[in-house]
Amino acid sequence: MDVTPALHGSEVVVAGWVWELRDIGKIKFIVLRDREGFIQITLKAGKTPENLFKIFVELGREDVIVVKGVVEASKIAKRGVEIFPSEIWVLNKAKPLPIDVWSETPDLATRLRWRSVDLKRPRNLAIFSLASAMLRTIRDVLYGEGFVEVFTPKIIVTSTEGGAELFPVLYFERVAYLSQSPQLYKEQLTASLERVFEIGPAYRAEKHNTDYHLNEFISVDAEAAFMDYTDIMNILEKMTKNLAKTVASFSTKLNEVGVKPVVTEVRNVPRVDYDEAVDWLRRLGFAVNWGDDLTVEMQMALMKFYGPVYFLVNFPASLRPFYTKRRDGEKSESYDLIINGIEVASGATRIHRRDELEEEMRKRGLDPRLFEAHLSVFDYGMPPHAGFGLGFNRLVTAMLGLDNVRHATLYPRDRYRVEP
Amino acid sequence: MDVTPALHGSEVVVAGWVWELRDIGKIKFIVLRDREGFIQITLKAGKTPENLFKIFVELGREDVIVVKGVVEASKIAKRGVEIFPSEIWVLNKAKPLPIDVWSETPDLATRLRWRSVDLKRPRNLAIFSLASAMLRTIRDVLYGEGFVEVFTPKIIVTSTEGGAELFPVLYFERVAYLSQSPQLYKEQLTASLERVFEIGPAYRAEKHNTDYHLNEFISVDAEAAFMDYTDIMNILEKMTKNLAKTVASFSTKLNEVGVKPVVTEVRNVPRVDYDEAVDWLRRLGFAVNWGDDLTVEMQMALMKFYGPVYFLVNFPASLRPFYTKRRDGEKSESYDLIINGIEVASGATRIHRRDELEEEMRKRGLDPRLFEAHLSVFDYGMPPHAGFGLGFNRLVTAMLGLDNVRHATLYPRDRYRVEP
Repeated sequence: MDVTPALHGSEVVVAGWVWELRDIGKIKFIVLRDREGFIQITLKAGKTPENLFKIFVELGREDVIVVKGVVEASKIAKRGVEIFPSEIWVLNKAKPLPIDVWSETPDLATRLRWRSVDLKRPRNLAIFSLASAMLRTIRDVLYGEGFVEVFTPKIIVTSTEGGAELFPVLYFERVAYLSQSPQLYKEQLTASLERVFEIGPAYRAEKHNTDYHLNEFISVDAEAAFMDYTDIMNILEKMTKNLAKTVASFSTKLNEVGVKPVVTEVRNVPRVDYDEAVDWLRRLGFAVNWGDDLTVEMQMALMKFYGPVYFLVNFPASLRPFYTKRRDGEKSESYDLIINGIEVASGATRIHRRDELEEEMRKRGLDPRLFEAHLSVFDYGMPPHAGFGLGFNRLVTAMLGLDNVRHATLYPRDRYRVEP
Repeated sequence: MDVTPALHGSEVVVAGWVWELRDIGKIKFIVLRDREGFIQITLKAGKTPENLFKIFVELGREDVIVVKGVVEASKIAKRGVEIFPSEIWVLNKAKPLPIDVWSETPDLATRLRWRSVDLKRPRNLAIFSLASAMLRTIRDVLYGEGFVEVFTPKIIVTSTEGGAELFPVLYFERVAYLSQSPQLYKEQLTASLERVFEIGPAYRAEKHNTDYHLNEFISVDAEAAFMDYTDIMNILEKMTKNLAKTVASFSTKLNEVGVKPVVTEVRNVPRVDYDEAVDWLRRLGFAVNWGDDLTVEMQMALMKFYGPVYFLVNFPASLRPFYTKRRDGEKSESYDLIINGIEVASGATRIHRRDELEEEMRKRGLDPRLFEAHLSVFDYGMPPHAGFGLGFNRLVTAMLGLDNVRHATLYPRDRYRVEP
C-alpha cells in the first residue's frame, strides 16, 4: 500500500487487515494494515455514505477488507494522509486473535505456538521482508562473481563429516539420512561447474537447545575452483558490505518496529589470526589455551578491538574438519566470519589431493573406505578449491542484534518443536 | 575463460582441464576445457620452451593445469584463437575416467553412477549453467511482482493433502515426515507477508519410477493475497516469456552440445478450458471422459492446436485438492501450465473460508480435525488468495526437450537411486 500525500484528491482502492478501530462520535477511524504499513480510513458523518457506518460497527480487528475512497493529505493522520471511503467490502471476518500482536507482550514460545498469527506483527513483517532482501543481495554478489546456483540432494547415505548427529529417513526399503551440509557435493561440483552456490535447508540432530541453534536451518554454501581462502574472504567481505547497505535501506522501517540493527555499514573486515585472538583473550583474563575453540562470549569480547564484523583466520587444524588444508603444519587455511560475536560463516581452502584427504581422515579416526564414493571423485581431476558455509538465520539474527535465532526463522525446528 | 582474437598479442593465464591431447610431431596441441568452453594451447618446436614438451608427454586427459602464454589469433584453431604457452603448471593429475565424457555413448544409469565425473561433459555444463540462469529469471519476475522469498520447514507432522506418500523421519523421540509441498505454509503466510515464494526441495514417496518423476525435486511455490487464478496465470505467462528469452540467450551454447530447445520464444499462452480440451481429444479419437485426468500423450496431442506452451484451465473440482475454489458447481478456478506436453506448474484460486474448506475435506474423505492447526489460521483473517507450484526440474526438461527429468537434475533421487 503506497498511499502518499501526493495522491491527494485521487480515488484509490486498498486492501488489508483492520489493525485498529476508533469511534469518537461523528468521526470514526479504521487503521488498515498491510505488509508495508498502515493507512487511516476516516468515516465522517455527512461526508461518508450512511451504509458504511453500519459496516463499521460490525468490524473487528483483523477482518480482511477492501476500501475504495478518495485520498486527502492530512496534518493529523500518522502517514500525513487519510482515505475518505465511498465503499467498504468485508472479504473475511476474524475471530478475536489467540495472541496479542499489537504489543510485544507474549513470550516467544507462545508466539511460535501461533506463528502464522504472530507473523502479522509489524516487527515480523519488517524482519522477514528484510530477510528476503538479504537473500537477494547474497545471490547478486555470487552471480557477480560467476557462481552458478545448484541444488544437491538432502537425502543422503553417508555423513558429511563422519559425525553421528543425523536424522534417519526411511527411504523405501532402506535407511538414509538428512544432509548436514552440501559440503561434499559442492566440492565435487568444482571439478565441473567450477563456481557453485546453494541456498537450502540443512539438518543437525544435535540435542542441545540454545538461542543460536536450530535443527533445521537455511545454509548458504559456496565453493569455487582455483580459489583459496583469501579469495573467498574477499567475496564474503564484499557480501557483508552489500548486506549492510541492504539493512541500512530498511532503517526507517526497523526503527518503527523497535529493531536496532548492529550492522548498517561495513568499511573493512579485519582478518584476525587465531593466535592473536588467543593472546588478546588471555590478557582480558579468559582461561583459553591454544587449540581451544572460542566461545560466543570471547568473540563478543574481541569486538572492542575489531568492531562488530571480523574474520578469525588460521585456526589450529585440529579444530577443523578433515577436508581443511593445512598451513605451517599445525594451523590451517581457515576462517570464521564473526558478526556481533556470533559465528555466521565458516570456510577454508580445501584439500584437493586424495592422499592428503585420506591422511586427515585417519588422523580424525575416520575410515577412508566409508568415503570411497567421495574420494574416488578426487582421482579424476579435482582442482584446488575453497569455499564457505553460512547460516542464514544466524546472519539475520547477528546483523539485526536479535537475541534468538528463532526470531529470524518463520517456523523453527528445534529439540522440542516440530509444529506448526 | 574468455579468450578472444581481440586479445591477440596479450599474455594471459588460463586454468582448466585437459580435454584432448594431439601430437603431430613438431607441433603439439592441448585442448583445455573449463565451464565456458575450450581453448587451444599450441606447443611448437623452436618457439615453446623445451621443458614444456616434457610436461606435455606426461599429461593425461582431465589433468588440472594452469597455462601462462601469449594469445594469437588463428584461422585454423576452433575458436579463432590459440595460446602459445610460456609456462604450464600441473595442479592435479587425473586417472583414466571411469566413463566416457567425450561422446554421448554411456547410458543414463552409468552416467548417474559417476555423476560428478559425468558433469564434466559440455552438454551438462550447458544445461546446469542455463538452469541457474532460469532460476534467476524466475526470482526476478517474482521480485518484480512484490513477492517476498521465504523458507518453510521440510520436517512436518501432518500431510499436506492427506495422502499417504510421505517419507518418515525419526525426529528425536517422534516420527515426523518430509514435506510434499509448502502448500499449507504458503497459504498461511498470505495472511501476513501477502505475497510469498519459496524455491526448495519437496518429497514424494511415490513408488512408480517414470521419466518425469523424482522422489526429491525442486519446487517453486508462490502464493499471493488478493489475487485469483487469472492474476497468477498472468504472472506465470510473464515468467514463461522471460524464461524463453533466457533459453534463447543460450542458443549458441546449446546448439554446440546438441540440445535443441523446444521453447525459445513465447508470444502468448492460450488458456484452454478443460471442456474444450476434452472435446478436441475425443474428436482426435482419445477415449477420454469428462472428469478424467489428461495424460502426457493427450497433452502432447493438444500442442497441434495450441502450440508447445498453453494453460489448461477450469478443471473439474473432483480432480483438484480440497483447497481449490469451485467455479459453477462442478468445475474449479484451477489451471495447469503445459510445456511440450508436460505439466510443469499447477495452481488455483484457493478457498479462504474455513467452513468451505471443511466441506471440501469431508467430500474427499479427509477428517477436518486432523487439519485443525491449519484450519485455525483461517479463523484470524485469511485473505482471498491464489498461487502456483512449479516443478523446476520438469520445467528445464520440458523447455529443452530432454527425454528424462534426470538430465535436468544434478544428483537424482528416485525409487532405486539414493547415491551418489
